[in-house]
Amino acid sequence: MNHHVENALNEIKRGISEIIDEERVVSLVKNYFEKGERFLVKVGFDPTAPDLHLGHTVLLQKMALLQKFGATIQFLIGDFTGMIGDPTGKNETRKKLTREVVLANAQTYKEQVFKILDPEKTNVMFNSKWIEALGSAGLVELTTTFNVARMLEREDFEKRYKSQAPISISEFLYPLLQGYDSVAMKCDIEMGGTDQKFNLLMGRHLQRAYNIGKEQAVIMMPLLEGLDGVNKMSKSLGNYIGVTDEPSDMFGKMLSISDTLMWRYYELLSTKTLEEIAQLKAGVLDGSVHPKHAKEALAQEIVTRYHGRDAAQAALESFNRVHAQHEIPEDIETFTCNESPIWIAKALVDCGLETSTSQARRDIKQGAIKLDQVRVEDEQLQLASGEYVVQVGKRKFVKLKVQ
Amino acid sequence: MNHHVENALNEIKRGISEIIDEERVVSLVKNYFEKGERFLVKVGFDPTAPDLHLGHTVLLQKMALLQKFGATIQFLIGDFTGMIGDPTGKNETRKKLTREVVLANAQTYKEQVFKILDPEKTNVMFNSKWIEALGSAGLVELTTTFNVARMLEREDFEKRYKSQAPISISEFLYPLLQGYDSVAMKCDIEMGGTDQKFNLLMGRHLQRAYNIGKEQAVIMMPLLEGLDGVNKMSKSLGNYIGVTDEPSDMFGKMLSISDTLMWRYYELLSTKTLEEIAQLKAGVLDGSVHPKHAKEALAQEIVTRYHGRDAAQAALESFNRVHAQHEIPEDIETFTCNESPIWIAKALVDCGLETSTSQARRDIKQGAIKLDQVRVEDEQLQLASGEYVVQVGKRKFVKLKVQ
Repeated sequence: MNHHVENALNEIKRGISEIIDEERVVSLVKNYFEKGERFLVKVGFDPTAPDLHLGHTVLLQKMALLQKFGATIQFLIGDFTGMIGDPTGKNETRKKLTREVVLANAQTYKEQVFKILDPEKTNVMFNSKWIEALGSAGLVELTTTFNVARMLEREDFEKRYKSQAPISISEFLYPLLQGYDSVAMKCDIEMGGTDQKFNLLMGRHLQRAYNIGKEQAVIMMPLLEGLDGVNKMSKSLGNYIGVTDEPSDMFGKMLSISDTLMWRYYELLSTKTLEEIAQLKAGVLDGSVHPKHAKEALAQEIVTRYHGRDAAQAALESFNRVHAQHEIPEDIETFTCNESPIWIAKALVDCGLETSTSQARRDIKQGAIKLDQVRVEDEQLQLASGEYVVQVGKRKFVKLKVQ
Repeated sequence: MNHHVENALNEIKRGISEIIDEERVVSLVKNYFEKGERFLVKVGFDPTAPDLHLGHTVLLQKMALLQKFGATIQFLIGDFTGMIGDPTGKNETRKKLTREVVLANAQTYKEQVFKILDPEKTNVMFNSKWIEALGSAGLVELTTTFNVARMLEREDFEKRYKSQAPISISEFLYPLLQGYDSVAMKCDIEMGGTDQKFNLLMGRHLQRAYNIGKEQAVIMMPLLEGLDGVNKMSKSLGNYIGVTDEPSDMFGKMLSISDTLMWRYYELLSTKTLEEIAQLKAGVLDGSVHPKHAKEALAQEIVTRYHGRDAAQAALESFNRVHAQHEIPEDIETFTCNESPIWIAKALVDCGLETSTSQARRDIKQGAIKLDQVRVEDEQLQLASGEYVVQVGKRKFVKLKVQ
């Protein structure tokens, strides 16, 4: 395979959860590189929550990437389906939106997504156009293509049916209408979250049922973890960074995440290549890059994307000014451990910051231990060779050399 | 209650299976008698089988009766819903009809029903009119009014779901659309077969959901037994009398039914009043009317309805000519039983036609015993006081006097 194509495919597959019909994706990208023919990638947004957060942008970033490799993005605003509401993962039937609210939300979406997508390679579409044209007869026709038992196999429907929570019949129409969008839009690939798998496959099913001569491939993206690193990012959980958040809020929230989550965010949110990220990671590992600087770089990339370079620089400076008092004193003692890797609790006792490993573990549990200014959450943490600043409470610091 | 109203209600309730909201029916009829205000009665016909048989006319007869008591019949031809097909009681999804076939069938229906209904008090309606006007959005709106679990409670759906026979999602739309007809037609009463109960109640549900200010009462008619007296009359079972059958076929089939079934047909198909039927029955019981003559009278009433008086008279004469050789010889012996009631097998032995009651029972099983020219099916039959012609095989006759 051509080197460009291979590179492109590696970037496309970066961080994704699942591809269905990968062969088709390969041939579309190849075709673009060889003949310059573009292909159609559908992404549907349900205009119920117009304020995007970084969780949503995982998909948008991937779309922006695909635009570089031949995709014309069909950015579908489900103005018709939004009036039904798909209750995936919710225990209650969603409240219906009025058409006015749907359209206002759609406008907000457009303003936000063009910070990521190339507008020249994006068609914004509204599904009311073809769904209204279906009319009663067309809609009934559509419902003949799928059966009740298979619909009830969709995980959330199955769960609600079994627990006797009501499922409105209108909710059965949602996956069908969303699938019909793929028929009307003649798309080659559809993208969505892993929670949308059933609906995404419906598009393939209906393209076949309506015999349009193609069947879409499906690329599924994971749901981004929120700032807590555990739950998916969501507004209701409060663990989110909104794309319209103020630069300083965005920056501060980004600096608050754990190192592990930072690499996850690099993978899913950064436009750095995989190679660049690997270099950065190596730098942090060999001590040539401080983890905090890697985090600052990511924070600046994100703030720059939504607010510009100047705002990002200002956010960095302001953050450092505000947090200066929490910085590490210059004159702290250095302690050398001759064991590597070493259990953090043992290292804390060895260097004299803690009196016992059980006390050390209690302090870790209570969030009183920091390693390079990041709270330690794992009591079993093993420290590899390198230099660390360990901190107990607000004032006790030691520089640890593990060798 | 006024005597006229009471009479009317008795006739309305004659032979029906169930009324829902009887109070409303009473007040509609009272209102007609008192103020001359007419009310709207909906009956839906699914135009898949345009050749009506007497089973269908049970409903039509009741509608004709209601027309006398204030009903304007809204004869709904489900040209839209006919394209979906409601598979009630079938194990397979019905084949969809094209609009052309539906309309041709509807025309045939109209030709047939006006032999029973008063066209002056009948509006023929097509549901495509208001269902097409619903459009995609209206249809989706309609599906929000009902939930999946309750739909799956419908007996046939439940059975198919449990046995993993496919139910197309379009089939869920059928009861909703049929119910919406009641909304659009603003009807006061809906009539249907007992097998339609779920759908009939949906009309009430949707009139409430759409807040049209009335909720229809429901009158359900039983499914008429076919010529065999056991299964419901149906074309596929071959046990039917079609309303377009030739006069002689109609007459002959009617004469072939059992006496028990004859009274059932009187109740459900005749326009004789309950009083007239009671008199006739008394006549047969006291021996002043021969059962065969009661049957001939019913056959003539039915043939007259569909082919006119002359054709009915000709059918009677032709039937008697053809069947003359099977008539009872004039010179048969008379035997008197002094036990009443008497078990038929015992009577057969007593009068010398059979050698033992067990032989008599075997002959009944094989259909070799006739009582007044009607085959005896019940081995346990008890003969009440009266005169009977009993016949074993083709040639052995005795006139039995049970006293």
